[in-house]
Amino acid sequence: MKVIELKETITASNDRDAEVLRTELKAQKTLLVNLMASPGAGKTTLLERTIRDLGKQYRIAVMEADVDSDVDAKRIEMLGAKAVQAHTGGMCHMDAGMTRRALEELNAPDADLVVLENVGNLICPAEFDTGAGKNVMLLSVPEGDDKPLKYPLMFTTSDVLIITKTDVMPYFDFDLARCKERAKKLNPRIEIFAVSSKTGDGMDAWEAWLSNAIDSWKH
Amino acid sequence: MKVIELKETITASNDRDAEVLRTELKAQKTLLVNLMASPGAGKTTLLERTIRDLGKQYRIAVMEADVDSDVDAKRIEMLGAKAVQAHTGGMCHMDAGMTRRALEELNAPDADLVVLENVGNLICPAEFDTGAGKNVMLLSVPEGDDKPLKYPLMFTTSDVLIITKTDVMPYFDFDLARCKERAKKLNPRIEIFAVSSKTGDGMDAWEAWLSNAIDSWKH
Repeated sequence: MKVIELKETITASNDRDAEVLRTELKAQKTLLVNLMASPGAGKTTLLERTIRDLGKQYRIAVMEADVDSDVDAKRIEMLGAKAVQAHTGGMCHMDAGMTRRALEELNAPDADLVVLENVGNLICPAEFDTGAGKNVMLLSVPEGDDKPLKYPLMFTTSDVLIITKTDVMPYFDFDLARCKERAKKLNPRIEIFAVSSKTGDGMDAWEAWLSNAIDSWKH
Repeated sequence: MKVIELKETITASNDRDAEVLRTELKAQKTLLVNLMASPGAGKTTLLERTIRDLGKQYRIAVMEADVDSDVDAKRIEMLGAKAVQAHTGGMCHMDAGMTRRALEELNAPDADLVVLENVGNLICPAEFDTGAGKNVMLLSVPEGDDKPLKYPLMFTTSDVLIITKTDVMPYFDFDLARCKERAKKLNPRIEIFAVSSKTGDGMDAWEAWLSNAIDSWKH
């Protein structure tokens, strides 16, 4: 497993770079999913379960972005998936140039799906188009149902919201219907799934959506 | 309750500005505590309980910083404490200039304690000295005990680490001893408390530390 050190791309045209990267990935028939969430929302655990469930059907590779450490990439590699750990040099997000660099190091041109697990942060990653075909955000039950009010941009820019850790719902004051309503108000087209990566509850609906997205991306 | 719109201070000398602000607050005998954590780690709930417990003994005022919404400042005002909501204009942190602006709007020169509830984020706030006398960070049990490995700077720059939501410890794979060890390795002088703001467990030790910090600041 590689650990690479990244620096922010010096460019005023991140949006254009992202569009170019997206077009290249489309031609290559690789769907890039940008996975965003707070620290500890369960991004890696969701990924582990998703790779276990869909790993025989699709070639899946993962880019882990973090300020430091390589614990996440190691977890993914234990499942037999190709993984690379990117360090952002203190930066709170990935941009299109950094994503391109990480993709080069990952070197998985035949992958059906590449997941970029972005830096744990509900603010900065939403501001930078990475070139991903789909933006997926997680919100965990312990974080609270008021997060759409406080971090609106992340909800606005995501195609999918996955509400995670639903198994601990009884121990927290989390109103699922109210959370969904707040997210839909910001982004009426957002797809919402509620899952527990621990018990597997709700994973089938998320994985059906993801399979469909991978298949659609090839056409 | 006021809602103010802040913009990043255009200055190459945030550290110097922070030092000036800290000196002024010392002369004024007001301890400024910078409270930092991920979204949903329980900053506002800890604050509510702390104000309830210490609000008769000390004059406490609060500055809530968020990208959007005013839900937190409203919660604090319901306790009868002076509060101001600062919007960071999309920014992921508060700097010394923004903190000074918020303090002016708060207008609580006779406060013993002012708490700045920083933007929910484990990365950016650690990079900017706000002028606070003490930096306090929260890590909630659901986030996981690996966070010191991934977000080291926040642990390095904090005087205190409060591990929150200990009441849900039975439902999560969180090793308290391992988390403390990882934090101490990054910052041997960090004070660590483990609390549940819900049940009140562990609040006495944190509040004893805070009372002592407020009293010491006056001398």
